Amino acid sequence: MPSPIRVGFIGLSATGGWANASHYPYLPQSPHYKITALCNSSVKSAQESIKAHGLDPSAKAYDSAESLAADPDVDLVVVCVKVDQHYRLAKPALLAGKDVFVEWPLGRNLQEADELCQLAKSKAGRHVVGLEESLAPSTKYIKRIIDEGKIGKVLSSSLWGVGMHSGWGPMDARAANTADVEFGGNLLTIGTMHTLETITSVLGELKSYTPLLANQRPRITVKNDDGTTSTRDKTSHDQVMLQGTFESGAVLSFHFRGGGPFKDTPGIIWRIYGEKGELSIEGDGYALSMGLPLTVKLHDFESEKVQTLDVPVLVEEWKDRKMPPMAHMMGLVYKAFYEEKGYVDFEGAVTRHKMIVDIYARAEK
Amino acid sequence: MPSPIRVGFIGLSATGGWANASHYPYLPQSPHYKITALCNSSVKSAQESIKAHGLDPSAKAYDSAESLAADPDVDLVVVCVKVDQHYRLAKPALLAGKDVFVEWPLGRNLQEADELCQLAKSKAGRHVVGLEESLAPSTKYIKRIIDEGKIGKVLSSSLWGVGMHSGWGPMDARAANTADVEFGGNLLTIGTMHTLETITSVLGELKSYTPLLANQRPRITVKNDDGTTSTRDKTSHDQVMLQGTFESGAVLSFHFRGGGPFKDTPGIIWRIYGEKGELSIEGDGYALSMGLPLTVKLHDFESEKVQTLDVPVLVEEWKDRKMPPMAHMMGLVYKAFYEEKGYVDFEGAVTRHKMIVDIYARAEK
Repeated sequence: MPSPIRVGFIGLSATGGWANASHYPYLPQSPHYKITALCNSSVKSAQESIKAHGLDPSAKAYDSAESLAADPDVDLVVVCVKVDQHYRLAKPALLAGKDVFVEWPLGRNLQEADELCQLAKSKAGRHVVGLEESLAPSTKYIKRIIDEGKIGKVLSSSLWGVGMHSGWGPMDARAANTADVEFGGNLLTIGTMHTLETITSVLGELKSYTPLLANQRPRITVKNDDGTTSTRDKTSHDQVMLQGTFESGAVLSFHFRGGGPFKDTPGIIWRIYGEKGELSIEGDGYALSMGLPLTVKLHDFESEKVQTLDVPVLVEEWKDRKMPPMAHMMGLVYKAFYEEKGYVDFEGAVTRHKMIVDIYARAEK
Repeated sequence: MPSPIRVGFIGLSATGGWANASHYPYLPQSPHYKITALCNSSVKSAQESIKAHGLDPSAKAYDSAESLAADPDVDLVVVCVKVDQHYRLAKPALLAGKDVFVEWPLGRNLQEADELCQLAKSKAGRHVVGLEESLAPSTKYIKRIIDEGKIGKVLSSSLWGVGMHSGWGPMDARAANTADVEFGGNLLTIGTMHTLETITSVLGELKSYTPLLANQRPRITVKNDDGTTSTRDKTSHDQVMLQGTFESGAVLSFHFRGGGPFKDTPGIIWRIYGEKGELSIEGDGYALSMGLPLTVKLHDFESEKVQTLDVPVLVEEWKDRKMPPMAHMMGLVYKAFYEEKGYVDFEGAVTRHKMIVDIYARAEK
């Protein structure tokens, strides 16, 4: 790889948002990346962001994905915006043969994801999506415990979790587009798929499964930015269940629902039951994806002892860099991309999009 | 009803066992029942039990179900023995037109249960099975909380539990027949069906569901009574999963596995999630069936308060009778039978047996 990889970033605002919290912090701290251009909704907004982040003043400001794609000083285009804009903003970069990093989900639906993937494969560029779970220190640690035989052969696993919106009370206006199933970002495509990515990273892929979806709050209240509230229809699902069998023969029970956890209890409870021991993993609903603290306990059946394991949640060598946990996670994707191994590319993303299509088609509703 | 109802009891030993712990204690304390005959494996054993329990010395001792069935001083024959003996021992009483109480499961399989049910319906006698969950104070209490609107409309429920044998370590010889799926008593037919009886008593019947079964420990070690161990095949399932939709539209995720709980955690965690609040119910794996202590908490979303509810686990007016919790539960069935309302009869049992057949037929394995 050339180093530094010159990044054209789409979606980095001057003030906040997901890109700032997750994708951005790693980049200025890495010798392997350099942001050379930003593309925002306006050139002015891009210029403000360049200034706010103290980027090299030579960094270029764009207001269109096409202009950014045409910049010869950009090797990698990062698309970190709302899901429904991924396709439109990634396509010009792919057509220009750039490397492209698109946040997960790759597209609003399989068609968009598949078209981006075909395009990526027909051009010279490399491609990567923001499915970071297999690289997380906690995921690797839990997998190692199992691989070392600490609980014997895995027999079953059960995961119960909560996350995303669509619970009690009004939804923030900025999250309200997740209420529209056509938007492409919701409890199934984001919360569930990230969590399943963790589960399968540890326990292997599912050989078969049966899904169930429900939209139990089809009408919701939205809290608008001006303080007023309004009501609207919700078409995305707020209950996702799945039971199935892993390639290994172990069985899985999975239930994820929208909204908050039962007060003062973990947002996620994950049990991995083996022939001679069991793991209990508890944390915030997003902990598994975002490197947030987890409690991992091992119950050894023969000794009848329970041991609290010292699971790493952050990247050890980056600890003094003061990046938020999710920036550690995303940094691992950038690192893997630089090293050209271990990241999920658009083909991997399409496989997950196919699973989403399959779940929509086969789920009891 | 004539009072007292004269009981001929099959399966009450002098020393211990399930009948002593559950069915027996209520009977001598009730003015509505009187044990007039016992039937054991031998007349001598029956006589010993009459003596050990201090029953009326006029109580008759039998060693065959046919002789007991012919006794004109018996109104109700109770069959409380191993599942595989239910059919053989209940049939003579039904043919004689007696009332009959058979512990759950009614038979080893649907055929046996159905034949007993047809027989019961063609004769004058009444019939009852040991599915006591709908009568339990805790079940009624939880149902009332929901009916009063404390959590609003129920949207979903998730139950994770452990129970029965087939976990780590050797199985006791006396439980080893549950390893044989043909025996008819196992994690699906006993643990799961009792728990589903509680769930449906509170949340209504399932409109549809998808089951999954697995036998993850197909070879087990048995600890024989003489202290030796031996190994044998196990054909019954140690993992039962089910996801589905209630008539109400709420959805259910259910996972029950054999063996013990993760150490120092509840053997059962049951969540009932509503539009405006959630119930968290925790206890021993059998708590829901046996009137054992439960912790029931209510999380009210609007006030963000959690309240620990004072759920009754025993029958208030029987508290000074010093009966074990399961005897309270079974006493409620006897009480309901005397009052001729609220108990599950053989037709109800056949409905559950049909569900078992359906689960065996449709489950991914």
